[in-house]
Amino acid sequence: MLDCAIIGGGPAGLTAGLYATRGGLKNVTLFEMGMPGGQITGSSEIENYPGFFDHEKTGMDFMNTWQEQCFHFGLKHEMKRVERVAKTGEHFTITLEGGEHVEALTVITCTGSTPRRAGFNGEDEFFGKGVSTCATCDGFFYKDKPVTVLGGGDTALEEAYYLSNICSDVYVVHRRDEFRAAPPTLERVKRKENIHLITDSVIEEAYGGMMGLDGVKIKNVKTGEITQMENSGLFVFVGHNVNNGVLKDENGEFICDVNDWGQVIVDLSMKTSLKGLFAAGDMRIEAPKQVVSAAGDGSIAALQVLSYIQELD
Amino acid sequence: MLDCAIIGGGPAGLTAGLYATRGGLKNVTLFEMGMPGGQITGSSEIENYPGFFDHEKTGMDFMNTWQEQCFHFGLKHEMKRVERVAKTGEHFTITLEGGEHVEALTVITCTGSTPRRAGFNGEDEFFGKGVSTCATCDGFFYKDKPVTVLGGGDTALEEAYYLSNICSDVYVVHRRDEFRAAPPTLERVKRKENIHLITDSVIEEAYGGMMGLDGVKIKNVKTGEITQMENSGLFVFVGHNVNNGVLKDENGEFICDVNDWGQVIVDLSMKTSLKGLFAAGDMRIEAPKQVVSAAGDGSIAALQVLSYIQELD
Repeated sequence: MLDCAIIGGGPAGLTAGLYATRGGLKNVTLFEMGMPGGQITGSSEIENYPGFFDHEKTGMDFMNTWQEQCFHFGLKHEMKRVERVAKTGEHFTITLEGGEHVEALTVITCTGSTPRRAGFNGEDEFFGKGVSTCATCDGFFYKDKPVTVLGGGDTALEEAYYLSNICSDVYVVHRRDEFRAAPPTLERVKRKENIHLITDSVIEEAYGGMMGLDGVKIKNVKTGEITQMENSGLFVFVGHNVNNGVLKDENGEFICDVNDWGQVIVDLSMKTSLKGLFAAGDMRIEAPKQVVSAAGDGSIAALQVLSYIQELD
Repeated sequence: MLDCAIIGGGPAGLTAGLYATRGGLKNVTLFEMGMPGGQITGSSEIENYPGFFDHEKTGMDFMNTWQEQCFHFGLKHEMKRVERVAKTGEHFTITLEGGEHVEALTVITCTGSTPRRAGFNGEDEFFGKGVSTCATCDGFFYKDKPVTVLGGGDTALEEAYYLSNICSDVYVVHRRDEFRAAPPTLERVKRKENIHLITDSVIEEAYGGMMGLDGVKIKNVKTGEITQMENSGLFVFVGHNVNNGVLKDENGEFICDVNDWGQVIVDLSMKTSLKGLFAAGDMRIEAPKQVVSAAGDGSIAALQVLSYIQELD
């Protein structure tokens, strides 16, 4: 019987593991298919995690410094995919790929969310090297430079607005002639002189070289015309998939409360609606999707696990 | 008019400043009397902030690495004491010592909380060198060693329990013969073989040398007998004062909702009950009082400030 099963090895899961083991729990396992680290390992530079500020270091370097520390206090790592979590009586049963079962007193899920890809040429090639899905993370790297934004929903326009306070010009490419975003958001964006709306258009291609993105080719879907725009930053906001599959039972029903977008509903203690189950990081409601906030969530969830187990004794 | 006034320069305030300025706000000032850094600068070693794991470095070294980064994006620092925050119409007026006023669109308060001192000899001398007020932070430094806990409330006994899973023996010193802690907590503690309750007693003195604490002298208040106990860790849990003074108006009324302990009530977005006012770090409800969670709070509050200002436009 595990004291705690941690599902997902990004910043939230690693920090939860650090706090749970350093807090004295003997049997804590983190389930993560590959090397732990999370989405940030794909970044070429990080400057908004307090205490880490080295322009020469990548997201991979950054996470290397976490590994030794987070596993130092006895956290175990299982490279196995978790299929499902179920509460069976007072404890949890975790089903792994291949049908193996593991029992645990508590579970912290931190499987994150995955930004959707738009599917244009060069999107994968330049991801983390000019193509980004996070304005808060990467906007500042394009200070006083022009950038392109792809998308037409609330997030796309809010992030375009965020970028307009940092970048010289923001070109918003949207495939329809009308925006799905809330009218006040759209009005605010329209009032910003350095935001330019390019409707009925898609990204045909992102191109560049060894140093990263050089520009984008934008295609008007009505006329077929292609415009080339040189700029080194392209932000793609076409939605996120919340990785909540492990929280569905065999009938596809969630074992805890989630909102309309599938984000797990938690309180300030990272408690879900199911006792003993905690959620941390990008998969929870109102997640700001930052390394430092995900790590904060992980510490909170682990401290709650320690209290929860204390009360079982 | 400031875009944002940040009150308090610990991990929450510094991170809020980093995120607010990196997010494009031009006029952001952090008010902190001395050098920013917070309580952690008093620690001799840190091993639970992910990404910082160097046994040779102190809390002061740790915070030095934050300074350059958090001020790099244009955050300003005013070494002035804030007396009061008031909402006047749509914006805030901040009264500084000496009566000077500063206006701001938004305010993030992160003035923390201060652990109360018990007042015994040696308490200040060995603070951070054996005397601690945080089991989560420092318990692991005494793995498999005996420690002393001072206090008789819920926190003292919960923390004693936490320590009992890490340390060889936990001696709980309490000045009365009965504990104020909730009965189930007391029962759990009594069932733990390595927790020893020493009632009717106080710490007479903490003693040691250059390397830190060597032991404590415990005085029985009924018999006057003094027992000397050699151990290198002493945890003091005699309460916290929430530093919420800046949120009181001239009549002593809070400008936003606080709970019975004076902790500021926030939601997952670090919003208080007063629009445009955010709270982050140890002064908020359910704060786990960890650097990483305070920093997470700071990032969340700053991102909310950016959205709030976006909506004012």
